[in-house]
Amino acid sequence: MKKVIYLILACFCTISGLAQKKMGDPAEVEKIMQNTANFSSFIMASDYEGIADSYTSDGKLFPNNRDIIEGRKAIIDYWTLPEGVSITHHKVMPEEIKVTGDEAWDYGYYEGRTKGRDGTESSWKGKYVIIWRKEEGVWKMYLDIWNRVP
Amino acid sequence: MKKVIYLILACFCTISGLAQKKMGDPAEVEKIMQNTANFSSFIMASDYEGIADSYTSDGKLFPNNRDIIEGRKAIIDYWTLPEGVSITHHKVMPEEIKVTGDEAWDYGYYEGRTKGRDGTESSWKGKYVIIWRKEEGVWKMYLDIWNRVP
Repeated sequence: MKKVIYLILACFCTISGLAQKKMGDPAEVEKIMQNTANFSSFIMASDYEGIADSYTSDGKLFPNNRDIIEGRKAIIDYWTLPEGVSITHHKVMPEEIKVTGDEAWDYGYYEGRTKGRDGTESSWKGKYVIIWRKEEGVWKMYLDIWNRVP
Repeated sequence: MKKVIYLILACFCTISGLAQKKMGDPAEVEKIMQNTANFSSFIMASDYEGIADSYTSDGKLFPNNRDIIEGRKAIIDYWTLPEGVSITHHKVMPEEIKVTGDEAWDYGYYEGRTKGRDGTESSWKGKYVIIWRKEEGVWKMYLDIWNRVP
């Protein structure tokens, strides 16, 4: 019995150690997590309108080796994949989310897999910081910056 | 006279067009800008204690091609330059700073110049997002993420 309790305690400690840190109104944090999952779905579906709608009207992208990208058309252009290329996997793993009123920030890791024209797949991983803002009642990304991890 | 007024107006418009957007308590924004300038001084002086003190006790760095770096020793290790190498120029140019209570975020561009062992200098430029937090009354960086611009 003691062993079982220790095991349960050990599992609990491990899970809570891995768990994300969420600060602020839990209902709002939940909405941000849902929109994060939706964003991954848009990426995997090459749904560029959905992707563009994930950013505020003045949202900004910070891709490596590029200037800051701003404006709906420029954001769509950035995310548009070459003909025959698709992103078959995209997942965001927030480490912390903090909501303060109509703004929030979160940071964490992301991972993905790209399928090329010749059918070969390549995996990638990175880390990010996002500043969120509520626009007409919907949480959208205002600043989106990321870079790779090995 | 009319020409002079137009000229003054033109200058004014250009300057305000280039000016940073500052939101929140102006005195706090000013402190963050001062700490930003101090950070550049620490970098140029290879003052690693000063650099480490610029981050909160749980501050995190997000350099490209690395995992998230955390902890005073790891932060100092990251910033420590090889023997004979120095950063001769470091300047941060915020585009926007927003203070909300004891937290703030800012984003913008930075530039620098590294002098190698053989005396040759190389320039670099990038963009960044920082989440600031007041720790014991002092604004420090909690999240510091950046990547290059061409």
